[in-house]
Amino acid sequence: MDTLQQLSSGLDTVWVVLTAAMILLMEGGFALLEAGFVRQKNAVSIIMKVFVDISFGALIFYFVGFGLMYGKDAGGFIGTSGFFMGGDLTHINLNISHETYWLFQCAFVIAVISIVSGAVAERINFRAYILYTIAMTGLIYPIAGHWVWSVGGWLGKLGMVDFAGSAVIHALGGFAALAAAMIIGPRIGKFSADGSANIVPPSNLPLASVGAFILWFGWFGFNSGSTLSATNSSIGHIAVTTMLSAAAGSATCILFTMLRYRKSDPPMVINGALAGLVGITAGCAFVSDVAAILIGAVCGIAMVYATEILEAKQIDDPVGAFPVHGVSGSIGTIAVGLFAQPDAVREGTAGLFYGGGFSLLGIQALGLVTVCLWGYIMTWASLKLIQKVAALRVSRDEELVGLDVGTHGVPAYSQEDGFIDLQHLKKN
Amino acid sequence: MDTLQQLSSGLDTVWVVLTAAMILLMEGGFALLEAGFVRQKNAVSIIMKVFVDISFGALIFYFVGFGLMYGKDAGGFIGTSGFFMGGDLTHINLNISHETYWLFQCAFVIAVISIVSGAVAERINFRAYILYTIAMTGLIYPIAGHWVWSVGGWLGKLGMVDFAGSAVIHALGGFAALAAAMIIGPRIGKFSADGSANIVPPSNLPLASVGAFILWFGWFGFNSGSTLSATNSSIGHIAVTTMLSAAAGSATCILFTMLRYRKSDPPMVINGALAGLVGITAGCAFVSDVAAILIGAVCGIAMVYATEILEAKQIDDPVGAFPVHGVSGSIGTIAVGLFAQPDAVREGTAGLFYGGGFSLLGIQALGLVTVCLWGYIMTWASLKLIQKVAALRVSRDEELVGLDVGTHGVPAYSQEDGFIDLQHLKKN
Amino acid sequence: MDTLQQLSSGLDTVWVVLTAAMILLMEGGFALLEAGFVRQKNAVSIIMKVFVDISFGALIFYFVGFGLMYGKDAGGFIGTSGFFMGGDLTHINLNISHETYWLFQCAFVIAVISIVSGAVAERINFRAYILYTIAMTGLIYPIAGHWVWSVGGWLGKLGMVDFAGSAVIHALGGFAALAAAMIIGPRIGKFSADGSANIVPPSNLPLASVGAFILWFGWFGFNSGSTLSATNSSIGHIAVTTMLSAAAGSATCILFTMLRYRKSDPPMVINGALAGLVGITAGCAFVSDVAAILIGAVCGIAMVYATEILEAKQIDDPVGAFPVHGVSGSIGTIAVGLFAQPDAVREGTAGLFYGGGFSLLGIQALGLVTVCLWGYIMTWASLKLIQKVAALRVSRDEELVGLDVGTHGVPAYSQEDGFIDLQHLKKN
Repeated sequence: MDTLQQLSSGLDTVWVVLTAAMILLMEGGFALLEAGFVRQKNAVSIIMKVFVDISFGALIFYFVGFGLMYGKDAGGFIGTSGFFMGGDLTHINLNISHETYWLFQCAFVIAVISIVSGAVAERINFRAYILYTIAMTGLIYPIAGHWVWSVGGWLGKLGMVDFAGSAVIHALGGFAALAAAMIIGPRIGKFSADGSANIVPPSNLPLASVGAFILWFGWFGFNSGSTLSATNSSIGHIAVTTMLSAAAGSATCILFTMLRYRKSDPPMVINGALAGLVGITAGCAFVSDVAAILIGAVCGIAMVYATEILEAKQIDDPVGAFPVHGVSGSIGTIAVGLFAQPDAVREGTAGLFYGGGFSLLGIQALGLVTVCLWGYIMTWASLKLIQKVAALRVSRDEELVGLDVGTHGVPAYSQEDGFIDLQHLKKN
Repeated sequence: MDTLQQLSSGLDTVWVVLTAAMILLMEGGFALLEAGFVRQKNAVSIIMKVFVDISFGALIFYFVGFGLMYGKDAGGFIGTSGFFMGGDLTHINLNISHETYWLFQCAFVIAVISIVSGAVAERINFRAYILYTIAMTGLIYPIAGHWVWSVGGWLGKLGMVDFAGSAVIHALGGFAALAAAMIIGPRIGKFSADGSANIVPPSNLPLASVGAFILWFGWFGFNSGSTLSATNSSIGHIAVTTMLSAAAGSATCILFTMLRYRKSDPPMVINGALAGLVGITAGCAFVSDVAAILIGAVCGIAMVYATEILEAKQIDDPVGAFPVHGVSGSIGTIAVGLFAQPDAVREGTAGLFYGGGFSLLGIQALGLVTVCLWGYIMTWASLKLIQKVAALRVSRDEELVGLDVGTHGVPAYSQEDGFIDLQHLKKN
Repeated sequence: MDTLQQLSSGLDTVWVVLTAAMILLMEGGFALLEAGFVRQKNAVSIIMKVFVDISFGALIFYFVGFGLMYGKDAGGFIGTSGFFMGGDLTHINLNISHETYWLFQCAFVIAVISIVSGAVAERINFRAYILYTIAMTGLIYPIAGHWVWSVGGWLGKLGMVDFAGSAVIHALGGFAALAAAMIIGPRIGKFSADGSANIVPPSNLPLASVGAFILWFGWFGFNSGSTLSATNSSIGHIAVTTMLSAAAGSATCILFTMLRYRKSDPPMVINGALAGLVGITAGCAFVSDVAAILIGAVCGIAMVYATEILEAKQIDDPVGAFPVHGVSGSIGTIAVGLFAQPDAVREGTAGLFYGGGFSLLGIQALGLVTVCLWGYIMTWASLKLIQKVAALRVSRDEELVGLDVGTHGVPAYSQEDGFIDLQHLKKN
């Protein structure tokens, strides 16, 4: 039996470590997606933000965030142990070590902050971004996460479910992104004086596309890995609903943009696949294959409309963080209340369309609104606070020249084929 | 014993889910490879085809393809259940769930159609491509696959073996690609009036190379994962033959092109590695390490010659889909008949060089010819049929301007550093 | 019990195969990193070197290297069986097959040679590079590896530990890179007549960054996979220290370059993350989380200084191979002697800071110096020998025009949108 227990925890450990690594690779996906979507002159600056996400995010979550999120519960609201992985964590009862669990959760928090990075691209001040990253990964996300996912969290106790984070990760991240985009304001030239939106082609669509494929790959880790156990019998089903919803989001956007714009629109197709992935994240373990297809399709179309609405409202979200994560995350959270199969969420519970009435749906809606408001308001508050110590936005000159050279002193792409004699340049 | 069974099926499930995810990541590899090989003006349009592959491919295979391929056998020719994953699938007797099995098979069908996308690059009409994708993933591949891999399939019953698909996936995909390239005809300017081939440097070789490395990575999932069981004792051997054959294909092309062209030719080296991978796919579990090296080397050289022959015959295959997949897939299928080690394929069977005589070789040849003809003819027929409802090829103007802007309204790469005031442009 | 044993070895096998595949994907990371760091005109030539690494490296290690490294020990110095995976390997007592073990080790040797490829970028002769690859993967690395990692190796017997290769892989590779960079000399124009260093912006920082993210992903395979067993209870801890050290290296470089250069410097941040990863590779299983953070931070800062020192000494290492791998690898090896937790390395042993005295530290230092000298001297000797049969460096003209067109006859990037009529060009 000892050997059996060793095998069992070994199997669960490698499952969680491998899926955590897949989720962390999504940072490469975010980097490509965002660098491809923004203008050349800001392609490195956006990637440097991803480096901030993964490095500051991991450290702050280690120091503070994990404790607030998964530490011993206080009042259903906050965790109180587990800082620096220390203190009492006996309430976390898993077949994997606490550290392994931390790694997986760390991959999640880094995804959240990466969602925001896209919305503030091409204009946020780098120092302000570092400070905001600390706020998000050390405070905003951990507390909301505690409510839904930690033992004793009040939303979880009410019965809210969010399998891998349509609400906790994507809707929260998306609404935080919305707040940030609104406070920081649109890029210079994005809107004309008459309010009409101007466009710029993405600088590198092949990179952005491959970013999406890497994210898609990582999502199998994101959703299936959230079982935290390799013997969970839902793993196959989760992977399949994830695949089908993504395919539906992408296929729908291929056809829908062909109808709507006469051109099958690449950025929309890329974001359509991601919208499908975001949308199924809450329900991947609970809904049927056909429901997954439906969820993906709805998220794809909603993403297109949300993108148009943002532009009409003169909110500038360069990579579509809110339409993809905020809107699809919300749809996905609500969809659990509609499509959850009988007894899938828990004994005796089902979604509205399966005879479960409005009970689960109501709880999902309450949880969603709470989490989104929290993300939105706390981001607003954090940025207002940060504003007191650092400019939120780069100078007009820096924005026009681009943040790559402006903030980081180097262009993303160079065709220089000799060397530049700096010494000599300075003398003359 | 119950725990043991849970562990066992959990282990197999995570093995298949992880390897399926690796195969699906190969779509990112295909996207990079093809976008890097074509001209800049078509780099996004080829990636959009990969999005069609993965999204339409998955959905159609869910609705129809899987049932035709793995459903209850009718006459050795076709499957008749399993559409929408429903109906009787009791004949599929695995340690993983039917859904998990579906995911793995879905990753395969998407690879098949992606093979074709490269051969029709830079000129196929997008609508025609969507229709062809439906034909391939819903009909052509599933039926051929049924013959070889499904319980009751006639080629499988005869004794044909194809471990992970040199024939069923690569040769079929390669011959379909050949038919498509021939019907659609060469790109404008590819051949001069006197029939000589003209060249164009690939637009982005770093991307193409990394595409190859991602494909190489995915191939470990492709081949090893085809065991469908983590306790299959061949897994290590399969991974090693896969590695060695790829290395041999690549090393051979490095040296061979150095001799032949005086320059070690990057596109040929990239395709040489892939040729080695394709070639070992049928025999990875059956042949020795040294045979794997030999197979990889032969495939590498054959790919170079096949590329030259295609050009001489004025067939335009922009990324080398036929030389890589059609030719190496064929060699790999035949190689099983030559190099299969005694009892590796099944008790009492061996390849020609191991004293097994011509029996296995003959069956492999028969199966190969059948599958290739099927892929070629059915592609021809499908495209002729599609031609009645949609042009197969973009207009001359669109081809010259490029499909990115022509079909999708956006260039792959942009160096624009401001915004374009569309509203204003329209007024003037 | 039979089923249990099957499960156990199946689990270990898939763990090692999957992590080996992740390490091999690191070649894609190296390719992107290096292609992004060098000038456009050499972007493909550096990737072709990575193809040499992975293809020649794998074959030579199969033929010769593995036997010298892990074959039956002779005098603590060299292995004497296992060539072509044949001969007596009974001293290797693992729960996985010898072939599976080979695959994992093969992924390691390919990483070693890839380290060197960056330091000789933009000027080494391709033929000389192939010969050097043979020397490194067939002789230099296997012998040093034997000393530390093989049953009977003299450094291992003395008590040196290097969990996943800070010394054996990174320090050795880094010092070999240093020797190679010194022998081959700086690129034309890198240093002015007065000795001052000139600069050139990296050609493609987004690619380089994504290379780093892929390497980061692969490192989870590199370090955790080095357990070679999925039931090793350190796996979670290893993955966490790996993550934290990388994050610390990256975060430190973000802040440190902001202080030092007034600009948070992207190439330094990229290399800072890698430095953190290299530094934790020896001690990932032995040191605490906090020590991991410290190690990562120190490696990040040391990498910046080492880069400056190399420039001051007029040694031209285009991608920073020595600062990242040589310096951080050395720090990481020594750090085990300082931070090893009691009984983590072996019963009764601890690092200096944990009351273990200077014993372990001394052995680590001795082993490190030995391995670094070996790598440096043998590389020097090999290149001197190779020089007798092939030029080490391309011609001045070829270097100025770039190795892509010079050696490989094709540019990395092309914006050509028609075809080039070679036939016609030749006639005129």
